[in-house]
Amino acid sequence: MNTLGNLFRITSFGESHGTMMGVVIDGCPSNIELNKKCIQDELDKRKPGQSSMTTERKESDTCEIVSGIFEGKTTGAPIAVLVKNSNMHSADYENLKDVFRPSHADASFFKKYGIRDHRGGGRSSGRETISRVMGGAVAQEILKQHNIEIIGFARSIGGEMFENVDESFIEKNPLRMADESSFKRALAHVEAVKAEGDSLGGIVEIRIKNPPAGLGAPVFDKLEADLAKACMSVGAVKGFEIGEGFSLSAKKGSEANDSFVSNSGSLQTERNANGGILGGISTGEDIWFRVAVKPTSSISKPQKTVNTKGEAVDLEIEGRHDPIIVPRVIPVLEAMTALVLVDHLMMNKAISND
Amino acid sequence: MNTLGNLFRITSFGESHGTMMGVVIDGCPSNIELNKKCIQDELDKRKPGQSSMTTERKESDTCEIVSGIFEGKTTGAPIAVLVKNSNMHSADYENLKDVFRPSHADASFFKKYGIRDHRGGGRSSGRETISRVMGGAVAQEILKQHNIEIIGFARSIGGEMFENVDESFIEKNPLRMADESSFKRALAHVEAVKAEGDSLGGIVEIRIKNPPAGLGAPVFDKLEADLAKACMSVGAVKGFEIGEGFSLSAKKGSEANDSFVSNSGSLQTERNANGGILGGISTGEDIWFRVAVKPTSSISKPQKTVNTKGEAVDLEIEGRHDPIIVPRVIPVLEAMTALVLVDHLMMNKAISND
Amino acid sequence: MNTLGNLFRITSFGESHGTMMGVVIDGCPSNIELNKKCIQDELDKRKPGQSSMTTERKESDTCEIVSGIFEGKTTGAPIAVLVKNSNMHSADYENLKDVFRPSHADASFFKKYGIRDHRGGGRSSGRETISRVMGGAVAQEILKQHNIEIIGFARSIGGEMFENVDESFIEKNPLRMADESSFKRALAHVEAVKAEGDSLGGIVEIRIKNPPAGLGAPVFDKLEADLAKACMSVGAVKGFEIGEGFSLSAKKGSEANDSFVSNSGSLQTERNANGGILGGISTGEDIWFRVAVKPTSSISKPQKTVNTKGEAVDLEIEGRHDPIIVPRVIPVLEAMTALVLVDHLMMNKAISND
Amino acid sequence: MNTLGNLFRITSFGESHGTMMGVVIDGCPSNIELNKKCIQDELDKRKPGQSSMTTERKESDTCEIVSGIFEGKTTGAPIAVLVKNSNMHSADYENLKDVFRPSHADASFFKKYGIRDHRGGGRSSGRETISRVMGGAVAQEILKQHNIEIIGFARSIGGEMFENVDESFIEKNPLRMADESSFKRALAHVEAVKAEGDSLGGIVEIRIKNPPAGLGAPVFDKLEADLAKACMSVGAVKGFEIGEGFSLSAKKGSEANDSFVSNSGSLQTERNANGGILGGISTGEDIWFRVAVKPTSSISKPQKTVNTKGEAVDLEIEGRHDPIIVPRVIPVLEAMTALVLVDHLMMNKAISND
Repeated sequence: MNTLGNLFRITSFGESHGTMMGVVIDGCPSNIELNKKCIQDELDKRKPGQSSMTTERKESDTCEIVSGIFEGKTTGAPIAVLVKNSNMHSADYENLKDVFRPSHADASFFKKYGIRDHRGGGRSSGRETISRVMGGAVAQEILKQHNIEIIGFARSIGGEMFENVDESFIEKNPLRMADESSFKRALAHVEAVKAEGDSLGGIVEIRIKNPPAGLGAPVFDKLEADLAKACMSVGAVKGFEIGEGFSLSAKKGSEANDSFVSNSGSLQTERNANGGILGGISTGEDIWFRVAVKPTSSISKPQKTVNTKGEAVDLEIEGRHDPIIVPRVIPVLEAMTALVLVDHLMMNKAISND
Repeated sequence: MNTLGNLFRITSFGESHGTMMGVVIDGCPSNIELNKKCIQDELDKRKPGQSSMTTERKESDTCEIVSGIFEGKTTGAPIAVLVKNSNMHSADYENLKDVFRPSHADASFFKKYGIRDHRGGGRSSGRETISRVMGGAVAQEILKQHNIEIIGFARSIGGEMFENVDESFIEKNPLRMADESSFKRALAHVEAVKAEGDSLGGIVEIRIKNPPAGLGAPVFDKLEADLAKACMSVGAVKGFEIGEGFSLSAKKGSEANDSFVSNSGSLQTERNANGGILGGISTGEDIWFRVAVKPTSSISKPQKTVNTKGEAVDLEIEGRHDPIIVPRVIPVLEAMTALVLVDHLMMNKAISND
Repeated sequence: MNTLGNLFRITSFGESHGTMMGVVIDGCPSNIELNKKCIQDELDKRKPGQSSMTTERKESDTCEIVSGIFEGKTTGAPIAVLVKNSNMHSADYENLKDVFRPSHADASFFKKYGIRDHRGGGRSSGRETISRVMGGAVAQEILKQHNIEIIGFARSIGGEMFENVDESFIEKNPLRMADESSFKRALAHVEAVKAEGDSLGGIVEIRIKNPPAGLGAPVFDKLEADLAKACMSVGAVKGFEIGEGFSLSAKKGSEANDSFVSNSGSLQTERNANGGILGGISTGEDIWFRVAVKPTSSISKPQKTVNTKGEAVDLEIEGRHDPIIVPRVIPVLEAMTALVLVDHLMMNKAISND
Repeated sequence: MNTLGNLFRITSFGESHGTMMGVVIDGCPSNIELNKKCIQDELDKRKPGQSSMTTERKESDTCEIVSGIFEGKTTGAPIAVLVKNSNMHSADYENLKDVFRPSHADASFFKKYGIRDHRGGGRSSGRETISRVMGGAVAQEILKQHNIEIIGFARSIGGEMFENVDESFIEKNPLRMADESSFKRALAHVEAVKAEGDSLGGIVEIRIKNPPAGLGAPVFDKLEADLAKACMSVGAVKGFEIGEGFSLSAKKGSEANDSFVSNSGSLQTERNANGGILGGISTGEDIWFRVAVKPTSSISKPQKTVNTKGEAVDLEIEGRHDPIIVPRVIPVLEAMTALVLVDHLMMNKAISND
């Protein structure tokens, strides 16, 4: 279904080449100051045409709030936000009408629905994430009231892991990396691959600063489980790990275990190996996890595939594609993280007995 | 909450050292033949004391179906299944009452609830997975009617990846590995680590054979997102990747992309790199994914930690623990997979227009 | 929350005096022919200004489908439909800013949210039912494929019950009554009350023709329970009864019981006293129920009330109000009925074992 | 499905003639004192054999809490409570195996599921309400902490409405009426009808004392809508009305409207005509509503019906049946009310911005 969340919910609608993209945000508490700019700022982080590292398509992606706000504040009513689609070159996709693009959703959609909106992927397009980013922007306003901050950056590009982390550099470079010299090296890599008509992937790290202890539930709705679902629901995402993740599986228990220590009366662990969550519930330490993003499936290089008649065909995908989608996925993953957190904050408040 | 699923749902209850563990399975179609043996067989795969590779605790874990079955068939009513707790050495845990065990949920539970059932971890104990396995066993009966099979095995143990796969060997060895010579090597590794009072982790691979195309939804409820949530909700799981997962993030698009080919009229891909799911929807190819399992947190080796007063203490965890939890997690992950699949099968049936 | 339904869901948004009203319809099967006219026709049944029996406000209430349809058919994507608000006399409400109107939601909204959009009731306005009617119109298209028909009419007006039922007359009179002579009598009553600046209520009867047996669930989600919730969620509705309803409570069991009879091999009852549902599950007979609608709360007659400071004030509500809301509530109740039915049809399909 | 509630949830299981009835209560806050007696006291109010006004079947209906409580307090874990079925005369039902009892669920269950547990109605039996009453008992403990009280009584018996209300008399008479002289008259009526082998119905009134303002939601989840669903989901219930309900539909607006008045600074209405809820949200005044209960369908008097072959048959239902189910339905309706209220209390807490 197209709704995410239990108490703080978003409902997403709109197709890549339809009239508009939209989101309905439900469950937002009243009396929160909210304006178009909060949402537009987040949208601008994901919009195309930001730099040579993203597709050159120009879309202004301007949002309009059509309900839920009265005199600059939320009223408790559902907040609907719309973005008109402006730069729809449906004709670009005419030659794709009968072709199943490799690693795209064309074939599986057709099998499920028996009908396919071939124009830009329809509902499977990355444009759908506009709705998520707008919902996430509202969630972020709520998190600010709790002094919780979410930071995402590219931890790996094209197979190279980068160890240095300078969070202040993230919004200063188009790849959203956290280190200047790493960025320069990665930039050269991306440019070279772009020139070949090819693409790259990477790994995103998300950090949640200052989360309260107690978020999440012990069994099915473990906080990391809901974060995993939210992140894995983003197109191009192929993996998720919390804290030291896969590398923990290669260690002995005595090495993997992370001792509790008392830091000025506050309970902490030595290295936050479990990513700020134990038994599905946040410990109060920073939460961190990583997400694998595959390279952009739409590339200019010729590919082989099959058409709707089952015939082998050669395919050259025209149009303007992202040489790497990682920098534009980061605000989407931040949004998904914010949505999960606010939902759990509200769930936790509901069961608290103060 | 303690309920998972939309149409096919399980509700789990019971604590490690309480009277019993139980599950209520709701949404099961009527007229399906179901008996205690179907469920007991799956339970036996996860029960302790199976081999020297698992804890030596002896628990018979015998199930009783108390509702939902009439004359050997499901009636459409909720199916409740109970397992009495028999081997409860609560005293074993008395000395842990005021201690936060490293990498356990003790501290986060206490922060969330302000109360803690210290006996064996209470609700955070691995015993809770009994409920999941019983629910999954019923789901597997439904999958059998669709000729869908789920196979799990240990792909990596203690950091070593094993390439050979002989599925017929899996149920013939206590580590649930898929290759005899790999098993011998891993067995020696586990035994050595066990002798040190330490533990190991590993990576589980799950394969879904013969799934129909069309399961999953395009946006938030992508099939891999629901599988990720289900797997990440199992204790000790730290990571999830679908298909080639994290390794795809290191490739170029031209290498990562997986061409469609026509195989005797059936649409397939060259290497099933995306794990049988594209755009959140199953393609009809086999589904496969991997799950990272950390080493057992309870080890005999002395550890440092903190008690409820914030004082540093030395900890030696007594009792009988699993040197590696991977083989017992596999039936749990198979159960979670079955639960997600049946739920999506039913969702897909609901919206189909035949 | 602003979402209704499990598998077939609508999410409603928009305020009376905001930019627009909207609905997102999720879960609609693909390949169903759907156009704007299907929806507009239902909207026209509820719109103001239809006759002297409704408010004289003129609002065109023209809908626009902005997603979910491709080449005239549903695609399985969420269907968003918008109606711009055109006739917003917010100034009409300026004098109501600090007053709690009797039998309106002003006071309870203010207590809940600490903020109040006083312009036309904001989210509590009857205009919100535009979203429901649009969602219901899509549901009706699905019901048509199953040859299920929903008919609503005014069974009582201003306290008088009317016994004759000629369904063909319903859409021929502005009170949506089912008998011509009854209509004439009721019309005179409404006109007299309107001239006094007062209002009337009534009882609506809804009939579902040709429903399949087996809809509904045995315990909490009894079909009549979901119908009751759906109807009671409509503003001005104060009561619900299924079949002979309240009058059954006054009978002896031997009179109330309704014998099964075999009618050419088909199982029926003598008088369908239970309204086509037994044990929460439809029997296959027509379903019928009644809904009590209170008189329009907004009347021109002077009233006494209290303002936000707690001071007693005299109130004269200006503007153009419905002398009786019953005829305009009928299409809303039909829509709610259609939404519940389609959701249960899909639920039932999901658990069926063919 | 067999789960009710969003944040405070119960899952019900068990058949009339199976091993046991049970409930899983999820979402209960931690650190609430809870013992078996709280639950047993409520169960005792609904158990059979209380008086000559109820069935003479003897069932002890003794509950056992099997999870969720540690040292006398809730832990936040799901609370499972079981009641063994002790007095199962399945043979009593052998002659009903192939007969569809009038106004029972036999036929509709069979049509839905294609299988039927004929022993005592299986899942459609009134015994299922044991699960509801146990869940409601836990909800009532939470309500007590908020000083909210729920009182139910028989407002009408066998068609006669009783005007006097003395709440202190309710638990002193087996019909749960609120006036001694009314009780005497009604008792004679029930005894006469019982002697005929027949049964009676009635109308229950529920009052919620001291509810907070702000419970409920403006659109689909209006508080009265959720109360209606909860009550209509109880077997034998045929109607629901909030406040003055159906009688409001017969009044003019000027009579129906209920002016706000200021009572020592507190906002009240003149007569609480709308039942303590306006626009779906509680006003802070007492909430009251009425529920129509049909006469017990199982009567000793001979009846005509049809068997599974479609043949007309004469039916005499043996066994020991309630001459009037109203007094035993009252604790069930109180339980349903408590469940809805606690759920809404928690929902409201979640969105509050303090």
